[in-house]
Parts: sequence; structure tokens; C-alpha cells
Amino acid sequence: MVRVAVAGASGYMGAELLRLLLVHPRVSVSGVTSDRLAGEPLARAYPHLRGLCDLRFHDLDAGWLADVADVVFLALPHMESQKAVPALRRRGVKAIDLSADYRLRDPQDYVTWYKAPHVDAAGLAEAVYGLPELHRKAIAGAALVANPGCYPAGAILATAPLVRAGLARLDGIVIDGKSGVTGAGAQGRKVDPMYLYTEANENVQAYGLASHRHTPEMEQELGALAGAAVRVAFTPHLLPLNRGLYTTASVPLAAPVATARLLEVYREFYAGEPFVRVLDEGERPTTRAVVGSNYCDVTVVADPRTGRAICVSAIDNLGKGGSANGVQNLNILCGWPERTGLDAPPVYP
Amino acid sequence: MVRVAVAGASGYMGAELLRLLLVHPRVSVSGVTSDRLAGEPLARAYPHLRGLCDLRFHDLDAGWLADVADVVFLALPHMESQKAVPALRRRGVKAIDLSADYRLRDPQDYVTWYKAPHVDAAGLAEAVYGLPELHRKAIAGAALVANPGCYPAGAILATAPLVRAGLARLDGIVIDGKSGVTGAGAQGRKVDPMYLYTEANENVQAYGLASHRHTPEMEQELGALAGAAVRVAFTPHLLPLNRGLYTTASVPLAAPVATARLLEVYREFYAGEPFVRVLDEGERPTTRAVVGSNYCDVTVVADPRTGRAICVSAIDNLGKGGSANGVQNLNILCGWPERTGLDAPPVYP
Amino acid sequence: MVRVAVAGASGYMGAELLRLLLVHPRVSVSGVTSDRLAGEPLARAYPHLRGLCDLRFHDLDAGWLADVADVVFLALPHMESQKAVPALRRRGVKAIDLSADYRLRDPQDYVTWYKAPHVDAAGLAEAVYGLPELHRKAIAGAALVANPGCYPAGAILATAPLVRAGLARLDGIVIDGKSGVTGAGAQGRKVDPMYLYTEANENVQAYGLASHRHTPEMEQELGALAGAAVRVAFTPHLLPLNRGLYTTASVPLAAPVATARLLEVYREFYAGEPFVRVLDEGERPTTRAVVGSNYCDVTVVADPRTGRAICVSAIDNLGKGGSANGVQNLNILCGWPERTGLDAPPVYP
Amino acid sequence: MVRVAVAGASGYMGAELLRLLLVHPRVSVSGVTSDRLAGEPLARAYPHLRGLCDLRFHDLDAGWLADVADVVFLALPHMESQKAVPALRRRGVKAIDLSADYRLRDPQDYVTWYKAPHVDAAGLAEAVYGLPELHRKAIAGAALVANPGCYPAGAILATAPLVRAGLARLDGIVIDGKSGVTGAGAQGRKVDPMYLYTEANENVQAYGLASHRHTPEMEQELGALAGAAVRVAFTPHLLPLNRGLYTTASVPLAAPVATARLLEVYREFYAGEPFVRVLDEGERPTTRAVVGSNYCDVTVVADPRTGRAICVSAIDNLGKGGSANGVQNLNILCGWPERTGLDAPPVYP
Repeated sequence: MVRVAVAGASGYMGAELLRLLLVHPRVSVSGVTSDRLAGEPLARAYPHLRGLCDLRFHDLDAGWLADVADVVFLALPHMESQKAVPALRRRGVKAIDLSADYRLRDPQDYVTWYKAPHVDAAGLAEAVYGLPELHRKAIAGAALVANPGCYPAGAILATAPLVRAGLARLDGIVIDGKSGVTGAGAQGRKVDPMYLYTEANENVQAYGLASHRHTPEMEQELGALAGAAVRVAFTPHLLPLNRGLYTTASVPLAAPVATARLLEVYREFYAGEPFVRVLDEGERPTTRAVVGSNYCDVTVVADPRTGRAICVSAIDNLGKGGSANGVQNLNILCGWPERTGLDAPPVYP
Repeated sequence: MVRVAVAGASGYMGAELLRLLLVHPRVSVSGVTSDRLAGEPLARAYPHLRGLCDLRFHDLDAGWLADVADVVFLALPHMESQKAVPALRRRGVKAIDLSADYRLRDPQDYVTWYKAPHVDAAGLAEAVYGLPELHRKAIAGAALVANPGCYPAGAILATAPLVRAGLARLDGIVIDGKSGVTGAGAQGRKVDPMYLYTEANENVQAYGLASHRHTPEMEQELGALAGAAVRVAFTPHLLPLNRGLYTTASVPLAAPVATARLLEVYREFYAGEPFVRVLDEGERPTTRAVVGSNYCDVTVVADPRTGRAICVSAIDNLGKGGSANGVQNLNILCGWPERTGLDAPPVYP
Repeated sequence: MVRVAVAGASGYMGAELLRLLLVHPRVSVSGVTSDRLAGEPLARAYPHLRGLCDLRFHDLDAGWLADVADVVFLALPHMESQKAVPALRRRGVKAIDLSADYRLRDPQDYVTWYKAPHVDAAGLAEAVYGLPELHRKAIAGAALVANPGCYPAGAILATAPLVRAGLARLDGIVIDGKSGVTGAGAQGRKVDPMYLYTEANENVQAYGLASHRHTPEMEQELGALAGAAVRVAFTPHLLPLNRGLYTTASVPLAAPVATARLLEVYREFYAGEPFVRVLDEGERPTTRAVVGSNYCDVTVVADPRTGRAICVSAIDNLGKGGSANGVQNLNILCGWPERTGLDAPPVYP
Repeated sequence: MVRVAVAGASGYMGAELLRLLLVHPRVSVSGVTSDRLAGEPLARAYPHLRGLCDLRFHDLDAGWLADVADVVFLALPHMESQKAVPALRRRGVKAIDLSADYRLRDPQDYVTWYKAPHVDAAGLAEAVYGLPELHRKAIAGAALVANPGCYPAGAILATAPLVRAGLARLDGIVIDGKSGVTGAGAQGRKVDPMYLYTEANENVQAYGLASHRHTPEMEQELGALAGAAVRVAFTPHLLPLNRGLYTTASVPLAAPVATARLLEVYREFYAGEPFVRVLDEGERPTTRAVVGSNYCDVTVVADPRTGRAICVSAIDNLGKGGSANGVQNLNILCGWPERTGLDAPPVYP
């Protein structure tokens, strides 16, 4: 059994990691940290885990984490991970970081989008972007994996085949993201009026207009696939559901192409992928069909009227958009079959 | 008192019309029709109206409607209105049609998008598109008003000032629409599995990809404002809320322009409008703030990175996207102040 | 026009009062207070009221309130109202208190249930319990009206006819209350984890087991109707909806009686009441049918197997369970028809 | 591997069975039936199962079922199971029936509550009531297991220790049940207006007043525990959530007893139970903490004011209230550890 710890385990990403790791057949959960809840039993924060785990929250101490764990998941706020990771790496402990801290290759992007310089340039240089569908081999040999943001996971999986195949024009890509409330900045169970039931229920709103920090992540990965700079106009939205992230991307086509041909391109690109399901023509992704799992359902439709393709994906923001994808990375890192601990079907309805 | 009847009163649009008309100070509701419920008291279909109205549903009979009413609202499925309207017009009864039947100027568009020729070419030629913010004067003198679709109402109000001012490039407009379940094809309380609680709750899905019938309506009205053909890439979505329609439009800018300048353009365009609220920079529309009312909250942000503007609007699909807008049209038609019967604030939360 | 102010206007009860009062034909809203938001424009707290009211929040100052208003609504936390009311009463300003501070006749009950002595015994002695269906005449002449709690409003209206008619046994009454999230302690838009969307959505929970402070209020009013002590076993629940309060009361019958006879008793008791609707046999109350209004829908069924009656009511916790009932009290206090400003139908769906 | 088939697999109970059985380590799913969908692939009805199972729906044919399966789950409407079970039993196939058809010991009860005589008296005589917490030994040797109804499962687990210990008075028990929409009669994905999103969302309603068919099931099992007749006043409610069933029982106490003592009784009664969690004093069950699992969270509080105990339980209506409990029965029937295939934690949030 590999010993795995979760740093910053009191938020929704941490809760989902524990839900998966506690029944992962090759893992023993060896530690959980939360500065706020240090000393408390896990079930105080998570009534659903009553009786399922005897651990207590420890404070965030990289030395202690390195003692108790072979691999550490970090589900910390951004700017916090980059303080904790160097000590883990010095101790030879592998890290899978769910924050934004190691996702962008160019340190300057942190200054631009996060308004602060990165404090672990060495870690940043070695980190691998943890989307298995794009970087499986690099993840297998990595010491530090940067798990994708939820919006980038959905947006990249929706559009990567089109961009990679050279079928997309790289200007004019418009991406509309729609997230349930466990994403959208509320991962830490932050008590903000915007996230109150009475405010979020029966409500929709856009936020982060022209400024959301997941934008450069999409541009970096799609740009690498295209071999050229990509600009994305991205708008995130907060929806009244607990889990689920839906992406609708409108991509200008370089030349006319039929839906059937686009679907072939998608099927080839994702051939053999254990967690991406390309839907048949006429079918539509729904978040309902992926919630609670690591699946990404995706489809694409050509719109000859506008010369565009509509690329649509559905994921669970805590699944392929977060914790479950992190467990897939763990499996790759450890050389296990990728579906290990991830084969439970989505929870419907 | 003007006598007003509602044809097709058993769906959500009809219910909302009745909610508004029953307390409209210058209206008496003189008839309601529903072939399915003919003979039943109104409250059998609408328990919330118990004790508030003694009417019974009548079957759909244009002659009877012309006898009992001075103005008739039609909340019928498309293809049904165009059968009922000619008889009303012959009898000199004014009609406000909430279906799609009289919205498109070009009869050929019905063949293209609705797969059937229009049967009332004369009515179509005289009908006025009932968005007061664009066509107030024509509505005042009209005998037949075609109330806008919910998605077009949101999309046009979000983008009209930009298009009218010549600030938009007319290719590359991408519009993402998000509707609550009383819109999105369920207006007639249709019992379809897609609209079951268990299927729609905690779920998001796109539908009508590259094919939604509200698209030509947006292109017609924006094209008229631009004085040139406009192509819109529109994708509608079904969200888990009862009411509310949110529009996020991404519009390529003809030239760089600052957010502050865009907001000025919007404020000028909507100056004096009783039901459009242009938000201040930094504020964001939410459906929560308009539900139950005829308001449209709108804002715009320039994105210099992509050379685009993000135009966002929030309406109630049964409000400005339907019945309440219809009552505004009634007020204009009758020469009453436009806020008559529409001054109740939105219902929050 | 009567000048009306709202003290503690930043919570949901205050918001609902403003929604109603801003279009009340005989009222001008002359002041709103919130210590937290003092100086801010109303629309900062309430985006739905943008453009509808120019007032700014004032701090809570009884002298200022007495200057600007003829009648003051207090939507303050309990223990706060009893500090503000005496100064208002000295100045001759009438007060309608939405807190619990003046509802219980016996000062000792405050010590028992609220763990603190009452500081305004004189006010308490004069206050009238503001449920018009029981105390209409006293309200008409009152200087201080104690608006009922939401659970008591629902529970008393569900069971009063049975208790008054001597058909109930007074031991063994069990009342199950179910509230939307704008009630249940969250009126003040309190930012507590229990009220987060992610925690309240798709969840049900009981709370206040054997200890909820609305219990003595039910016992006081039902006891007065019975002319004897009544004990109620009351359990409140938090449900995932914004508005709505549902009461299911199980009342042991003193003797066998048929449902039809029980319904007659209810119809007689509520004859002429403008806001109580007794449903026909076979119909069931739903919160859907009363939300956004001052209505209470009620029914009763005899269960000969158990010798009990099941009494069911549905109200809006911000309507008949709060603000709208407060406006009805205002109408009575001012000698206006009781439906003034309250005749808009419920908001469906 | 034991071959397991699901008859009537197109409803929510069937879907949940498949979610669990497809990853059960000792089971192979060998057949699914649905007369309506016969010939269709499983994923046509269940998009979440795309790619996870190649089966197609077969029509309901007991002979075929007996050929392909060692154990058959029946998730059919009541009255249908009793037609299919005899043929299965003749062929020696074990059956776990999720309908109501084999739950009541007294055939006369079917006439009284279901208005029709039972057609399989022999099966009824041999069937075991499948609540492991009460009937574990009998289940182990059974050929036909009658899985409990969702309301009875919640109600019996909430009150059984109290009744068994002789602490309850057997008259005056009042039980309030609250179910999500996958229960409450909608298991078959029935397309009824009551279950439309727009009708069930933001709504609460009682139904089946004094007449719900789960009542005799509660009385039978609690009566057996008490060794005397028990009468239950039960009222079910439909709540706006997909999954979750909450029970609040008010039980008159035979003598005064403290909460701490009651909790001891509960802990003793449920000692060693793998799926019942007795909460600590001050903690409250929530459906949130059990959804997606077979857990039942339960607590009890004494109310000395009324001489009653409040017994509260939370289950998933598709979990301990249905399919997951059925899998626990399968495990017992097959002699496997009871947590086999059921050890995934609840899905939170």
C-alpha cells in the first residue's frame, strides 16, 4: 500500500479525494491537514465520513507530511502550495498539487494573472501539467504534478482534438464555462454571501469577465497543441448545482468540415482513453451523466452557417475537473492501471 | 376597463399573463382558453389562483374570443397562432402573439427554420416585432404584435447598443443562452422526460446545437440595427431553475474601445427605458435580481486581449422574455404609461 | 400617504417588506436602517431594487426613525427590538415588530426560552399578537404589534379551528414544520456554513429538537383558543428551497368525526378571511401555490384508524409567516382594506 | 461470480442497482429487462452508463431470467412482481423483490391497502422481510426477500430500538416522512405533472394523507418488535431533492427517560451493524451525509415537556431505502461480508 496524505483536506476537493482514496485498493490514507481544524477528528468536518476513518486533522507541516506519506495531494489555496511543495520535494515525496501554483509554465504569467511572483521557480520548472489525455508519459515520471483547473480541464478536453488537427482558426475561440457551486471559488467551503443557498439558488451569474485566471492555462495547453499562440475569450458562470462543469466552446473552422468528420477526429484523438467518452451524433453531454466520476463526455457539431464548430463537454468539477483526475494522476505516477479506484459509475440521478 | 383574453392559458406563459393581468388596474380578464381543460375552472390548473378568478377555460374559438375581448394574448404553440389570428383580425380584435408565428419578416425563414410555409402571409406582413426598446412607435399603432422569443429578447438587449453604434464586427458574434425550465420548450407544461425534476435538477445541458429557431430572430433584429447582415452562433442551455434567462454574448470589436466608453453607449441607447437597467462598471447581472419582473439588467466589458466585448444580460424568461413584455406591449398599444401593472419589484430571493 | 420606515432592513424580512411597501398605494417608504450598511444606497444590498428607491441605509436610531416615520417595522434580531421599541412608543410612533420580542405574554417565558429577562415589560404588556385571523380587533387599536413567527403562523392557522371547536385533545399534538432557507434562522442573511448552497442544497435536516423557541408561541395561542393549557411537540426542519413553510400537524381527536365535518368547521372559522383558503376534500396545500403572497392554504383530514386529524398548511415564510402578514397588520392598524397592497397573486411557478 | 439480473431495470431503483452491481467484486450482471425498452442498449436509457456495460434490455420473461441468472432483483411496479416471482421460484432462482408485493405477512392487508387480492400466497408465506437489522438470519436462508419500502426503512430504523426496549407507548406514534423525487412514486421515471421540474422545484407537499400504503409495513414490523399491535399515524411528503429520505418520529414514552439513556439503547440495538450510525448527543442526521450509500444515520432526543421522544433518521431512498439495502441482502443471501460492494463512502456534497 502506498501511503497518501491530503494537505488542505477541509474543502470540497479534499473531501472528494478522501471519498475516493479511502476505498482505493492500493492506497492507505495516512494523514490529513487543516490549520483551521487541527486536532479535530475528520468526521467533525465531514459527517458523511463518520465511522469510516479514524484520522484527525494535523496542522500543515511539510516535515510531518514527508514522514507519514509517500505521495501528498495538496488541496490548498493558490500561493500556499508553492510554500509547502519545496520541503516535500527535498524530502523526496511526490506531490500532486490541486492549486493553480504549478500549472503555468511561464513564471511571468503568475505576475500577470496572480499579481505576485512565484516563489518556487525550480518546482515550477519541473512540474508536469496533469492532464493525462495530453501528458500521460511526462506524468508517469514526474515528481510534481500540477492538476488542471476545473474550467481548463473541461475546455481543453472539449477543443483539443480540433486544435491539434489544425482544423481550428486560432483567433476567435470563445469559451463559455458553467460551474456548480463546489467549484467557482467555493472549494474551500468559503463562507461568502455569494455562496449562500438563498443567493445561489434559482440564480445564474457570470463572473470574472475578461479576467478569469484559468484563461492562461487554456491558452498554454491549446497553444502547445496548435504549435502557435492561441487566444481564448473565456467567461465563467456560477450555476445552481452542487457539482458539474459544462463547457460550450465556439471555435472558428479553418475550412468547411462536416460534423461526422469532426467526430472521427475526436474519436481518434481519444482512442483508448479510459475516461473520455465521445458521444454519437445527435447525443448531447449532460453533467448528470458524469457527476461523481472521472468521466468527460464530449461532442462536437459543425455549424456551416457561421463557419464554426460547437464543442461541448461535461465533467464533474470535483471529478475530471479536480480530485478524481488527481487520483488518475496518482495511478499513472505509481504505474497502476488508470481505472484503479475510479471504476465506480457516475451517480445518477 | 379594456377586456383582455388569453388564448392557450394553460401553460407557464399564460399563467404569468394571468398573474399580471388580474391585478392590472386598467384591464379586466374576460376569457381564457385551453382545448385540453375546456370547461374546467381556472384554479384546477392553477392552484395559486384559487379564489382569485371565477373564469373557466373555454375551448379555442376565435369567434368567441372576438366577442369577449378587445385584445387577445395568444400563448399557443407555434403554427397554432397563425391559424387563430386571421379570424381575430377580421373582427378588429388586436392580438399580442407570444408564439414564434409572426416574428420573422421573411416568410421563407419559416420554411427554413420551422419546416413549414406560413399560412397567414397578410398577418405576417403587418405584424410588428414587439420589443419596445426597438419598435415602440410601431407597436403603438399595431393591430398585431409579435412578442419576442425569450432568448432573442435577452440576446438583442445585451448587444443592440454595440451593434447599433457600429462598434461590433458583424461576423464572429457568439451568443450563449441559459434558460430556466419554464422556458426552453417547456412553456406548455409539456410532460417530457427531459423536464422531469429528477432529470433537470442538478443538471446542465446544451440543446439545439447550431439549429435553434430563435437564431434567425436575433439575426433579423440585429441586422436591422446594423443595416447589414449579421450572423450569430447561438447555443441554448437548459439550467436547473424555474425562471431566469441569462445571455452571455461575445462580440468582436471593430476597433479598440474601453469598457467605460461601451457603458456610455449602452446608457445612451437605453436612456429613458423603464425596464432596462445598465449596471455600473464592476457590477454583474444576476437572474435573481430580475425574476418576477419585466426588468432586463445588462452590462458590457471590453476585453482588449481578444479584441472582443462581453455583453451580459439577465431577464426573467416569463418576464421581459415573455408575458411581462407582452403586458408592456399592451400598455403601449392602449396608450397607457408603460409601467402600468408592471411596477412590482422583482421577487427576491 | 403614511410614512413607513423599516428598521433592520438588510435581511430577507426587510427585503420582502420593501418589495411590498414600495408599491403599496397608501404608503411612502421614508427610511431604512442597517448598522452594517449605514450610508450605503439600498440597491447595494438589494440589486433587485436598483432604480426603484433612492434611500440609503441609516444607522439604527430610534429618534431619527420617530422623526421620519408614522409607523416603523422592526425586522431586527430578537433582543434588539425590545431596546428600540420603548423610544418609538414614547414618541407616539406605532411599531410592528417582526422579531420574537413581544410575542409571548408571560415575561417568564423569555427567561425560559430565550435565557434572558425582557427589558421592556411595559411594551410587552401592551403588545398585541399580530395574527389577524385571531386578533383583528385588538390589532386595529394597537400601538405595538408582535408579528407572529413563521412556524407559529403556519401551525396556528393549521390547527386553530380544530382546537377552538373543542374537537382536539390537548395532549398529544405533534407538529412538524418545514421551512425554506430564508426562514430557519437565516433571515439576517447570516453567513453560516449551514446556510451555504453546497450544504443546504439536496439536503434535509431537523434542528432545534425539543427546544425550538417558536414552541411556546404556538402553545400560548392555541391554549387561549382552547381555554386550557396546550402542549405541542414541535420539530422544525430546514429544506432546500428559498421560500415556503409547510406545516403538518397531527392532532388527536376528542371523538370520531368525518373529514367533511372537519372541513365545515374550518370553513366557518375562516369565513370572510381574505388570506386563508380552505381547500376542498382531496386537494392538498403546496408551498408553490402561496409563495410570494400573504395566502395560507389549509386543509384537514380525519384518520379514523388512529383517531387523529392531519392538519396541513402552506404559507410563504416571508409572506403570511412574516412581511406580508406585517403589511396586513399595517392595513388593519391604519383602517385600510386588508388586501391593500397585497392583492398580487402568488408567484407561480 | 454470481450471475445477477435486474427485472424492471429502467427506473431509478434499477439504475441504482446497476450502479452498485456493475462494480460489485463477486457479481456479474447477466441480464436487464424492460418491456418498454426491450432491444435497446442499456446506455440509451442511462447515459451515465455509456461504455460501462454492453447489455441490452430484454423483455420481462421469467424463463429467460432463470436461464441467465442465479439471483434476480425485481424492480417492478407492485402487482407485477407477484406475477413474475412464482416462475423464478419454480426454477430455483433466488429473488430479491423491491416492490411492495411480498412485504406484508397478512394477505388480507393487500386487499385492504392495495385493493386487490394477492396472487402468490405461497410466495408470500415464504418471503422474508429484507431489513437486515431485524431479520438477518432469516434473510440468510431465504429464497425470496421482500426489500422494505423506503419510508418503512427510515421509520423502522428510527424507532425500532425504542419500541423493542418497551420504552414506547404504542398508541400515539406519529411519523413524518420526507422523500426526494426518486422515491415518492416516481421510481419508474413516471412522467406525471407532479414530478415535472417546474412543479416539484421550490415546492413541498404532503400526499397520501391517512392512506399511504407504507403504513401497514411499519405497523407490522414495529408490532412484531413490540409484541403487540402498533398504530402509526404516517404522513409522507415530496421534497425538492433527487435523493434522500428523512424521518421524524414522535413517540410517546412509557415513562420518563433521559436522552443519554435513549442513546445507549440505540447503541446497544445497533451494535455491530455495518450501516447504521447512531449519532452523538447534539449531532443531527442530514440526508447529505448518507446520499449515495447504504448508511442510515439516526438519533433520538427525549422531550420531558411532552413526554415524548423525537426519533430522527436519514437515509438515501435509493440506498438503505432501496437498491443498496437490496445489495446488502444479496450479500447476506450469498454468505459474503455485508459491506462487499457497498463500502464506497456517501457522495458529499
